[in-house]
Amino acid sequence: MKNLCKHLGLAALATGFLLTGCKPKGTGDAVSGDAAERVYVKPGEHDEFYNFVSGGFNGQLNIYGLPSGRLLKVVPVFSQNPENGYGYSEETKPMLETSHGFIPWGDLHHVELSQTNSEVDGRWIFCNENNTPRVARVDLKTFKTAEIIELPNSAGNHSSPFITGNTEYVVAGTRFSIPFDDENGDIPLDSYRQNFKGAISFIGVDPKTGAMDIDFQIQLPGIDFDLSHAGKGPSKDWFFFSCYNSEKANTLLEVNASQNDKDFLMAINWRKAAELAKAGKGRKVKTKYAHNVWDEETHTGKSEIREEVTMLSIEDLKGSIYFMPCPKSPHGCDVDPTGEYIIGSGKLAALIPVFSFTKIQKAIEKNDVIGDYDGVPVLKYESVLHGEVEKPGLGPLHTEFDAHGNAYTSMFLSSEVVKWNIKDLKVLDRQPTYYATGHLMTIMGDTAKPIGKYLVAYNKITKDRYLPTGPELTQSAQLFDISGDKMQLLLDFPTFGEPHYAQAAPADLIKKDQPKFYDIAKNNHPYVARGEKDTKVVREGNKVHVYLTTVRSHLAPDNIEGIKVGDEVLFHVTNIEQDWDIPHGFAVKGARNQAELLIMPGETVTYKWNPERVGIFPMYCTDFCSALHQEMQGYIRVSPAGSNPELKWSLNNKN
Amino acid sequence: MKNLCKHLGLAALATGFLLTGCKPKGTGDAVSGDAAERVYVKPGEHDEFYNFVSGGFNGQLNIYGLPSGRLLKVVPVFSQNPENGYGYSEETKPMLETSHGFIPWGDLHHVELSQTNSEVDGRWIFCNENNTPRVARVDLKTFKTAEIIELPNSAGNHSSPFITGNTEYVVAGTRFSIPFDDENGDIPLDSYRQNFKGAISFIGVDPKTGAMDIDFQIQLPGIDFDLSHAGKGPSKDWFFFSCYNSEKANTLLEVNASQNDKDFLMAINWRKAAELAKAGKGRKVKTKYAHNVWDEETHTGKSEIREEVTMLSIEDLKGSIYFMPCPKSPHGCDVDPTGEYIIGSGKLAALIPVFSFTKIQKAIEKNDVIGDYDGVPVLKYESVLHGEVEKPGLGPLHTEFDAHGNAYTSMFLSSEVVKWNIKDLKVLDRQPTYYATGHLMTIMGDTAKPIGKYLVAYNKITKDRYLPTGPELTQSAQLFDISGDKMQLLLDFPTFGEPHYAQAAPADLIKKDQPKFYDIAKNNHPYVARGEKDTKVVREGNKVHVYLTTVRSHLAPDNIEGIKVGDEVLFHVTNIEQDWDIPHGFAVKGARNQAELLIMPGETVTYKWNPERVGIFPMYCTDFCSALHQEMQGYIRVSPAGSNPELKWSLNNKN
Repeated sequence: MKNLCKHLGLAALATGFLLTGCKPKGTGDAVSGDAAERVYVKPGEHDEFYNFVSGGFNGQLNIYGLPSGRLLKVVPVFSQNPENGYGYSEETKPMLETSHGFIPWGDLHHVELSQTNSEVDGRWIFCNENNTPRVARVDLKTFKTAEIIELPNSAGNHSSPFITGNTEYVVAGTRFSIPFDDENGDIPLDSYRQNFKGAISFIGVDPKTGAMDIDFQIQLPGIDFDLSHAGKGPSKDWFFFSCYNSEKANTLLEVNASQNDKDFLMAINWRKAAELAKAGKGRKVKTKYAHNVWDEETHTGKSEIREEVTMLSIEDLKGSIYFMPCPKSPHGCDVDPTGEYIIGSGKLAALIPVFSFTKIQKAIEKNDVIGDYDGVPVLKYESVLHGEVEKPGLGPLHTEFDAHGNAYTSMFLSSEVVKWNIKDLKVLDRQPTYYATGHLMTIMGDTAKPIGKYLVAYNKITKDRYLPTGPELTQSAQLFDISGDKMQLLLDFPTFGEPHYAQAAPADLIKKDQPKFYDIAKNNHPYVARGEKDTKVVREGNKVHVYLTTVRSHLAPDNIEGIKVGDEVLFHVTNIEQDWDIPHGFAVKGARNQAELLIMPGETVTYKWNPERVGIFPMYCTDFCSALHQEMQGYIRVSPAGSNPELKWSLNNKN
Repeated sequence: MKNLCKHLGLAALATGFLLTGCKPKGTGDAVSGDAAERVYVKPGEHDEFYNFVSGGFNGQLNIYGLPSGRLLKVVPVFSQNPENGYGYSEETKPMLETSHGFIPWGDLHHVELSQTNSEVDGRWIFCNENNTPRVARVDLKTFKTAEIIELPNSAGNHSSPFITGNTEYVVAGTRFSIPFDDENGDIPLDSYRQNFKGAISFIGVDPKTGAMDIDFQIQLPGIDFDLSHAGKGPSKDWFFFSCYNSEKANTLLEVNASQNDKDFLMAINWRKAAELAKAGKGRKVKTKYAHNVWDEETHTGKSEIREEVTMLSIEDLKGSIYFMPCPKSPHGCDVDPTGEYIIGSGKLAALIPVFSFTKIQKAIEKNDVIGDYDGVPVLKYESVLHGEVEKPGLGPLHTEFDAHGNAYTSMFLSSEVVKWNIKDLKVLDRQPTYYATGHLMTIMGDTAKPIGKYLVAYNKITKDRYLPTGPELTQSAQLFDISGDKMQLLLDFPTFGEPHYAQAAPADLIKKDQPKFYDIAKNNHPYVARGEKDTKVVREGNKVHVYLTTVRSHLAPDNIEGIKVGDEVLFHVTNIEQDWDIPHGFAVKGARNQAELLIMPGETVTYKWNPERVGIFPMYCTDFCSALHQEMQGYIRVSPAGSNPELKWSLNNKN
């Protein structure tokens, strides 16, 4: 603890150098002797679990198999993906529209699998974007981004996308408070305390389709909201959020937001809030935010701008919103499987506080408050505390659970995972991690029915753990077996982007309803060619629509003439295969601002090309599709601007 | 063989469905009993080999550890990389410039490690781009793209980037013949035979710096060049290329380019060609191509357009260029470690022809030709043949070697790897692969000193091998131990993008000279701030330069005012850390057309932001850097266009 105190000294904070996590001493017998066998998935066999891992600064959702740690797929969500044309094709570009215009990148921090009765139901996974606040829903049938909604009156959407137990709501909270959109004028930064506000968004989710809609927001003090979790069981109507910067600093936060001994956990009765919003409480705030929806029938995204949200106030929520003091600059805000215990992880704290929902309710009943913070009543710490885990390690960040009443907390500064008993708060085991663990996860570890079995620690520092790759290194995860009394390290595996929160679920729950390809009969893309007979080239002014098909192993048409410099050529490429794992790709030499397309069987995708030079331009299939893939090519002739060439297209010299 | 014949029937070809590779029957004892132990790399220990794997349609270079199959790094080369800002930052955008303008994507097919005396020297790795023809050089100290050169008079740069034994030249050959740039006017496609030409480029490489320059090109018939390899030992002055479409078809190539029983391997005496070019032979062809170079001192790329190349003709090369008949539509063109044997892999052939360099020389001496093809003398097949491997399997694609005189050929159609003896041409072993293997590699398997030990097969079809992820599946590699008489399958591991060719080298050869960070004293970026004292905000008309630093855990400055709507704000972010594995990230809410930056210690990178809305915009560090990373944030105030706000910047209220 002395070390931590030293860390917390202002001098140390001002330089910050001591706060990157220590190299743990001695690995002991952390690695199990038969670890190799236990993580090996024999060729042809499948992993037991899907591990859905946030990509952090890559903006995508990365999916691994466990226990092997193999990267099965990167689902593009908030960032352009040159690999398959996401964010480059005409159909997918709308998915990255915002009220600010097209943004090619996002910072995907957390993921949350949809739930029914606080258990994973395998339908969707939600992802948050931290920079230009957004929440996405990924469909777990197609593993595609189905919907993205922007969050107005927010910045740094960090305490997101956590959900209520029947996926009624996804929440999203401001990490960086800002003036609200209807007041976001030319405001001096030194008026932070007067003008900057926090907001929490409650995004309603349609129980059948998953469609998202901002039901209401809550206006809150101008502090920073960090993480959150909904209650379960007895606490299922409540949502809990961690907050830091109760100092309301707007500069050098590492010092100025680290002054108070305690910040807060916030408790909100979300069901009550929803009722109030439904009853017409709250003011309407003018704003602009994008709502982007993917249509599986047209294989096309559509972006719309919305202009108003309902904003509830603290006053509106009287009796349904409370702060609880929580040491110090809390990060994780985690609810145990029973729903009785809420754990705050103060990243600068020397202990872990565990709050009791029963005690919270009693304190509310008795109005056991120590005052208010900007109108939010602050419950008395001692009255709502179940107890404190003492000497847990340095820099507790995040806690998950197993099926046996145990909690597992990541320790950023002391680089370890610590296992402790939720009821008696005794530390049971600790294992070093390499290095500086941020989030961790256990299998379904934030639900009412954790499986436990494995724990994965997502580490921030990797130096010396893998073959070096110059100054830029991979991030890393570590897999532990937690089925026994002691945690056993099994595997280090590199991770893509920068993982923050992750979740995992049994394979059977996820893989049951996946299509192997898209039914071309149901393809209602406006420019679909359902067979080669439908292929054609149509000029509309300077726009040229090419209805093109791909099938092993030719493009139809594969000779096109009559295009001119200055045209906008739209290749609507339909993959007319109807078989599993037979995508085709498409690209044209020299196409500016365009990445290739990968077109799945039955799908239509559009490639935009503005020819700027007279000459011959090859096009080809970019995905090795058959022994004659190399032969899957064609040519486009581009004639001068102002010329009047005949529009011609053919395959094997036939139209 | 009957199956293959059926495959080759025109009906089958026309539909193409039979050509995607079969599911092999029976895996036998392919998986070794102790495979788990043999691929497991204990946490904290390092892999034995770096595996440099082409990313194919992701456009990047993917680096894996072997034997674990873990993805250590994706080096962005030809595609934008939202994860670290490559292709989005002002410094890296020039690297993706071409004569067509900025192109955000490339199709990276093959890699080749630099060599000295036909052995891997660990300095650079070259990568080709297949769509808009380019060759890149990646520096193996920094694992960064150091240089990209565009290839004029070319399309579909496939037979690239193979090198001569002392890295004197990197070659690049046209896959899709086109009219040359000085004749690429408004040309009808049905004039293919008259107007379309092939070209091979010889890119000179500076032996000290690695700097590339197109030394000369060779004008060739309008056919398709596929793969290539330089000779070694006795054949070291020669380069060999595979060619298909000797039919010169320009439509439905799967049928029309599959007519001839034999296409060609081409042999060129590159040393002689270089002498001729040096002596002033060849014509100058006007063209435009980009040459992009990364400067490690300014951390900045620069793109220049060049306007002329030297073009040698077949006539110029008399006595130094020959065709050798090769069955049928050859893909791989591989030279054994001794340099005596050249293997063509006719992807529609029912055998593997092995040519003898000694016999080729004798045939040339005796002018043992059967005629010419567009002026290129065609040597007599029987005169240059060492022999044929009989019944090797279906669809041979690519061959590599071990240290014991054995060759390993991938069979796309019959989905297997076949081991055979180079001298006696006997098949020694075959193992099934899953499925449809394209390229394969053995450790340093195309050099004069292969290590062998492991073979990796890169497969095109993955269905059912991993947990499914909707219609879009991962690609896959399979690791075999080839140290014994029989190949043993050890591991399936998913791969990123679509691997084509790959190479591997021992870790010690690569990791020796890597910097852990960039020396900030040597940072000569024009907008560097080498410490917080150098931070400032400077207005130049509507351009605002922000000299900003990052260090654990604050941005300096972190409060900025005086920016206006309509400004172009350039954040020049210098990471002033000087320690290993402490990158910082940078992003601003709502920034259009911009991905985050990842800035390595000692580096300066520029983020462009065009504010379009009055208000407050947070910025923050996007890479979790310390326990107080969440506090590493700041605010920018944007005032209305036409207003005259004072330019102010501060950290903790101090300038």
